[in-house]
Amino acid sequence: MNNPLHILVSNDDGIHAPGIAALVEVAMEFGEVTVVAPDSPQSGMGHAISIGKPLRLTKEKLPFDVQAFAASGTPADCVKLATGVLMDKTPDLILSGINHGYNSSVSSIYSGTLSAAREGAIQSVPSVGFSLGNFQHGADMNPSKAVVRAILKEVTTNKLKAGQLLNVNIPYLPEDEIKGIKVVRQAMGRWVEEFDERVDPYGRKYYWLTGNFDLQDEGTDTDVHALTEGYVSVTPMTHDLTALSEIADLSKLDFKL
Amino acid sequence: MNNPLHILVSNDDGIHAPGIAALVEVAMEFGEVTVVAPDSPQSGMGHAISIGKPLRLTKEKLPFDVQAFAASGTPADCVKLATGVLMDKTPDLILSGINHGYNSSVSSIYSGTLSAAREGAIQSVPSVGFSLGNFQHGADMNPSKAVVRAILKEVTTNKLKAGQLLNVNIPYLPEDEIKGIKVVRQAMGRWVEEFDERVDPYGRKYYWLTGNFDLQDEGTDTDVHALTEGYVSVTPMTHDLTALSEIADLSKLDFKL
Repeated sequence: MNNPLHILVSNDDGIHAPGIAALVEVAMEFGEVTVVAPDSPQSGMGHAISIGKPLRLTKEKLPFDVQAFAASGTPADCVKLATGVLMDKTPDLILSGINHGYNSSVSSIYSGTLSAAREGAIQSVPSVGFSLGNFQHGADMNPSKAVVRAILKEVTTNKLKAGQLLNVNIPYLPEDEIKGIKVVRQAMGRWVEEFDERVDPYGRKYYWLTGNFDLQDEGTDTDVHALTEGYVSVTPMTHDLTALSEIADLSKLDFKL
Repeated sequence: MNNPLHILVSNDDGIHAPGIAALVEVAMEFGEVTVVAPDSPQSGMGHAISIGKPLRLTKEKLPFDVQAFAASGTPADCVKLATGVLMDKTPDLILSGINHGYNSSVSSIYSGTLSAAREGAIQSVPSVGFSLGNFQHGADMNPSKAVVRAILKEVTTNKLKAGQLLNVNIPYLPEDEIKGIKVVRQAMGRWVEEFDERVDPYGRKYYWLTGNFDLQDEGTDTDVHALTEGYVSVTPMTHDLTALSEIADLSKLDFKL
């Protein structure tokens, strides 16, 4: 390769998670890889950034021939530090994951994995977030590696546009049981909270956030539906949050100052 | 009032910020107010939630006749705790702010203020986030109170739909210089990082995240444009992040597993 792709890899489970090792391994087949990932788990961090708290970068030795740094901040911070401090030139592609657990439907809002990829997209870099439907540390990453390879083969040939963001979710199935890869929309749904209330040794209440996913979408063209059927879901995402369809109606309101 | 509106108020600057006091004061004119806000500043928290960290709620005495609680988590956690633990019935309206600083354009992604309102919208409650174009603790909140009142008058009469989310930004101007209220889309733009690199007393580098906003949008129908012209911007927002317009093209890619 005369002009290898420069690929930045991050995640939200931390630099030593098995998921990022799987992603780095496949990414190295496609270009020169730099890893900047959180020094501790950052699940559920949404698109948080560190304001008013200094950030640190620590060189890490990974079992791959790549430049790797652990950052003290959030996934979005990692991408900002990578492009703002560490890398000489803007990466050609930013990958995040492989997350331990789905980021389908509304989970994409809470996801640290997606926020690293979204931060890449905001910086006009094509970016892909990968998430696997299994929370276990010891989950078999081999079928996911095949999926990542299939996606990267296609998106590094038929290039993504500047700032395009893909949210890829992978069902936890043996490779020969994955039915294919579908481009689908985000399913509407929400997490219904069930707080686990406890009392600490000093008599004070505290709460653990738990919840169940409530699918509010019967579409067959959604990420949740594709995953349930055994397909990999690929959802293009935007960071323009405007609800364009509501503008006309709201403009009829008569706001009087 | 026989059936007063139940209004939940949160923010990201913390329960003792002047902005939330201004918002509570006006909200009380429209219904029964419950306050659940972070016990410490949570700016830039995006849509983070607390996973793996227990949450605490502490009853607070505010200088208003309202139920008030400080929560140890993020703005999104505050809304989850309010609806999941504290409130007997789902609130009719969720308000967040008034944030000390704009949340226009891409800042809506990083904003904790908006995440509290967005969490309300995800729970199908009409929600409004308010932000003022001034970072100072001592900023004059009176013009903003007039804006909040104007918005609430209209949205509590011509009701917002279930789960509708408005992002309201208020220019820091005397009331008689605010030109009006415009419904506009989110301007495209990004923050360009400039990390301030320093060395700690032990010889280790650390970085402060700073940056400048880069507007990448020449539209005259955007929040940034409205604010520059002296208008209040009202932007309807969605939590469906699907880039629908990209689905057709991406579906032509040939992903081979």
